[in-house]
Amino acid sequence: MPSVRFQPANVVADVPSGTPIHMAALRAGILDLELPCGGEGACGLCQVEVVGRDAPVLACQTSVTSDIVVRLPDRSQTAARALGDSHALIDAGLLPDRDHLTPLYHDLRITMPPASIEEHYSDWTRLTRELSRNSGTVPITTQLSVLRQLAEAVRTADGNVTVGVEESTSGQRVRDVRPGHSTAHALGLAVDIGTTTVAAQLVDLDDGSPLATQTSYNMQIRRGADVISRIDYARTGEHLEELRGLVLETINGLVGLLANAIPVDPRDIRAAFLAGNTTMTHLALGLPPRYIRESPYVPTVNFVPELRAQEVGLNIDPQAIVAFAPGVGSYVGGDITSGVLCTDLSTSNRDVFLFMDIGTNGEIVIGNTDWMVACACSAGPAFEGAGIKCGMRAAEGAIERVAISDDGEQLEYSVIHGGKPAGICGSGLISLLGDLFRQGVVDRSGRFFKSPGTGRIVEHQGRRAFLLATAEQARSGKDLVITEADLENLIRTKAAIYAAGSLVLKNVGLTWDAVARVYIAGGFGRYMRVADAVFIGMLPDLPLERFRYIGNSSLTGAYIALLSREHRRRMAEIAARITYVDMSSNPQYMDSYVKALFLPHTDLEQFPTVAETFESRRRNAP
Amino acid sequence: MPSVRFQPANVVADVPSGTPIHMAALRAGILDLELPCGGEGACGLCQVEVVGRDAPVLACQTSVTSDIVVRLPDRSQTAARALGDSHALIDAGLLPDRDHLTPLYHDLRITMPPASIEEHYSDWTRLTRELSRNSGTVPITTQLSVLRQLAEAVRTADGNVTVGVEESTSGQRVRDVRPGHSTAHALGLAVDIGTTTVAAQLVDLDDGSPLATQTSYNMQIRRGADVISRIDYARTGEHLEELRGLVLETINGLVGLLANAIPVDPRDIRAAFLAGNTTMTHLALGLPPRYIRESPYVPTVNFVPELRAQEVGLNIDPQAIVAFAPGVGSYVGGDITSGVLCTDLSTSNRDVFLFMDIGTNGEIVIGNTDWMVACACSAGPAFEGAGIKCGMRAAEGAIERVAISDDGEQLEYSVIHGGKPAGICGSGLISLLGDLFRQGVVDRSGRFFKSPGTGRIVEHQGRRAFLLATAEQARSGKDLVITEADLENLIRTKAAIYAAGSLVLKNVGLTWDAVARVYIAGGFGRYMRVADAVFIGMLPDLPLERFRYIGNSSLTGAYIALLSREHRRRMAEIAARITYVDMSSNPQYMDSYVKALFLPHTDLEQFPTVAETFESRRRNAP
Repeated sequence: MPSVRFQPANVVADVPSGTPIHMAALRAGILDLELPCGGEGACGLCQVEVVGRDAPVLACQTSVTSDIVVRLPDRSQTAARALGDSHALIDAGLLPDRDHLTPLYHDLRITMPPASIEEHYSDWTRLTRELSRNSGTVPITTQLSVLRQLAEAVRTADGNVTVGVEESTSGQRVRDVRPGHSTAHALGLAVDIGTTTVAAQLVDLDDGSPLATQTSYNMQIRRGADVISRIDYARTGEHLEELRGLVLETINGLVGLLANAIPVDPRDIRAAFLAGNTTMTHLALGLPPRYIRESPYVPTVNFVPELRAQEVGLNIDPQAIVAFAPGVGSYVGGDITSGVLCTDLSTSNRDVFLFMDIGTNGEIVIGNTDWMVACACSAGPAFEGAGIKCGMRAAEGAIERVAISDDGEQLEYSVIHGGKPAGICGSGLISLLGDLFRQGVVDRSGRFFKSPGTGRIVEHQGRRAFLLATAEQARSGKDLVITEADLENLIRTKAAIYAAGSLVLKNVGLTWDAVARVYIAGGFGRYMRVADAVFIGMLPDLPLERFRYIGNSSLTGAYIALLSREHRRRMAEIAARITYVDMSSNPQYMDSYVKALFLPHTDLEQFPTVAETFESRRRNAP
Repeated sequence: MPSVRFQPANVVADVPSGTPIHMAALRAGILDLELPCGGEGACGLCQVEVVGRDAPVLACQTSVTSDIVVRLPDRSQTAARALGDSHALIDAGLLPDRDHLTPLYHDLRITMPPASIEEHYSDWTRLTRELSRNSGTVPITTQLSVLRQLAEAVRTADGNVTVGVEESTSGQRVRDVRPGHSTAHALGLAVDIGTTTVAAQLVDLDDGSPLATQTSYNMQIRRGADVISRIDYARTGEHLEELRGLVLETINGLVGLLANAIPVDPRDIRAAFLAGNTTMTHLALGLPPRYIRESPYVPTVNFVPELRAQEVGLNIDPQAIVAFAPGVGSYVGGDITSGVLCTDLSTSNRDVFLFMDIGTNGEIVIGNTDWMVACACSAGPAFEGAGIKCGMRAAEGAIERVAISDDGEQLEYSVIHGGKPAGICGSGLISLLGDLFRQGVVDRSGRFFKSPGTGRIVEHQGRRAFLLATAEQARSGKDLVITEADLENLIRTKAAIYAAGSLVLKNVGLTWDAVARVYIAGGFGRYMRVADAVFIGMLPDLPLERFRYIGNSSLTGAYIALLSREHRRRMAEIAARITYVDMSSNPQYMDSYVKALFLPHTDLEQFPTVAETFESRRRNAP
């Protein structure tokens, strides 16, 4: 078997001759070669260099026939999500460079001009003038303890001081003034509070680098899978407090994991930026959510004023400033404005863009900097692994990509961080459903063609299932299977998403063709095979280069907003500009949804390339 | 003896025929007939109505010859200081009327518009829109506890809510939201922290009315009489804390007295506005004051950011907002900007005005809204009763006005709140020194002409003294006397004030004649006889109608600033506009001071009307 060595990671995979380079990379544990076109050779994003050859090649279109050394592009070295990498964000204009960061909290190293008889401004005035030089004239407040230490601090180290400054919507607040220029870096926290999954990221506020990310199921799950059941549960003050406690326990648990991993003291976290849907935000703050689902559907708050960690209940610096992504209304929350911030919807009015965030709820926003229309649908948590028998979050041990052989008998998969699989995450499920359908293992309703006992088809609790891994291969020592019930669940989810997208377009008088770029956000995993998502009819049949998978954009937006005043302002503009369209009251939605409950869709004309694939396969069939 | 009945107070005095009405009023305990011209008939401010006569008369020029009924102007009903009366302040444009108050803290009674499907703004957005309707668009913040109660509060009483709102320089802060329209009135506190005397006023923040005022010696006095000795004492952190504790004990003691008097709970005081000189402000906040008197004389802070009562140490609502009058520099503090706010210097540029605040330090500001120049001199606490044998603050029991008969033998005096005298306050001392000099009891050096045992001249501890009240007449059961040492003390103080005023005028190229109005502020008492102050050479020899005594203008300014956003802004402008001129380094000052150490002055040409009085007395002498 030829051997492929990947540089600069310096990892090796031995693969059968004829294996495409991108599959070899998968074998070698390299997971972040971008394949938005699904390996069709269409997007050109998987370009790599084969040492000794003159021109770069596409990893998806080039087979391994002998021992080679492959050099991957720099960006592929990071294991970050599509948009989690700060360099990529700076390149995309979504983050200022490190010398121009304006985080929620900043340690500014300044040199105070000495006072003189002529310029005898007070210590505080000289300090605030220096701060204004950096950030323009805004009101500057502080607390008494800072004033008490000020005279000595400015006279200890030749006027060199490190000033801890908070940026809020009402101005700046000086948190402390220390003599000398501190070498320690200030820490911040970005959090996405999802209905099913909570993700938290520790951030270096001095240079903007993300230090570590952790995700966990939202412990509120035990009190209901979706926002409606949580709102119903929270009707009493006691239950509301319970739900608040559960999500705080989740977040604080993640903070503890993050802090241990570095390690740092969580009390050194000086600022937090949180994004969540409106119900999650209300529950995290202990605000009664009932009015969210009672006409006229008015939440307590969309633009949450800045709060303190202590009152919120975050186990970080008790006085840390805590900001929230602003929401649009009861059914479009801060997670969406945070996500839209990461896309061209927030930067351009030259085209029309579509953003879809697929979580337990699916939200879709269409528009650009001139106008934005949003809708929401209940997608269900299937792509976060919930409600799927062997589903799991995109975490260590999750199958995140599969490849089924043409006969449907052989299976290749890659596992996050390697080792035996523990389950399958969103990206793996899309990949799996796509290949099951492509290779003719399931019909257009998601039913298996073959009977149990044939190939990988087994019987599981009275229904047909597909064997992903045997008990020996699986981490749990039990078979990992996908049942027909799981497939029905996935198809319902993809149908809801497609129907909502189609309808919101119709609502603004457009069709899918008019969309210059489709952004797909969600907790599927570290990447997602767009071609499979099109193939199963979750995404429209557009040229693959129009799609961009951006992962957990709610978290990424929170990370950006934590670091940049301009982007916090832009996020508020987004929230103010989005118009919500209620789809639950639209009779066309159910019609559109039912038509999408097939693979890829009842109306094959909407998926011409998928139809063409079947047609050519039929022609080529023996 | 004819009897005079004063209306509407309905009090009666029996006086010898020929007694002027204003002396009869004094006898009847009516203390607030304005006599800025000292009873010379020049200013016309003591106009009263004698029932049965056609035209009003001047109380100082009209003698009582038969039983009459005198109707006093409405304003005379209040016992407030010259500017302490809110109606007078509204009339003078120094305070908005009660419907347009913008206090530091305000209970706003608003009706929330109901949400609808079309206008489904969040509760918080609807609330902040209503607040913006009242006060323009400013950043609005709050705390989590407010958001938690919001949904229920706005749905309980048909959208009627009472919203506790703080006004700060960085925007508004919602402190609480209660269902219904509260009938309780919010309370505020205005404080003048003087080096010798501390004054506190309890204020109704809903209608702007002053509820009660209390004064007390600053308990720091035991650690030094003036700011220099306090700064020196505060060199160690322990001593600084001690001084801080002493002034807080003083203020909190006054708060307790005020709260008991109404009675109210001090924790219902939601806002405080404090004015003090720079050293007093630093000591009250526990800020090291040493750099105030070390070159280049730079305080920690002039514009103190708003703080919370808890961190400051005030025994009121711990979360109450605490604001400070902004200072100009080390030797011109917030008490001066607060005082200037009460004068035409803050409102007009058509003339030149002079403001003098006579406390332990004397500060003088000259100018108008276009320019202001300030200087400071060490006046000493004599006019606050400190350093004078039987001196006392202008409080109950203080002799506040005296009249000596032409032969220097007979004495009339009035006592604050009546009864036996306990001592003599600033206004009494000026009145006394003026009459001692006018009636020929003392010479131009302040020495008694006659020997002890003659008339009221007695011997006291080896020096000559003037008997104010015998042991039987006095509250203490001991003689009340003014010694020659006391008179020297008073003359030093008046000389320092006059010299500083003359020199600051010279500094800007003007003379006293150019001053359209002279404002005299200080803790002398409830009023001050300007004619006496001119007669002893403390004030320049200008037409009496150019003078205006405005009492404790630092407290009045704090009271105004507590109630009006516009005036808080104006106060900051004043502080920014004042240019400080250092006089201690000016060799002309000592020369000018020494020349003023006579009654009225070495150079009689500077006091032509005083010279004329003596000349005419000499001519008329038998």
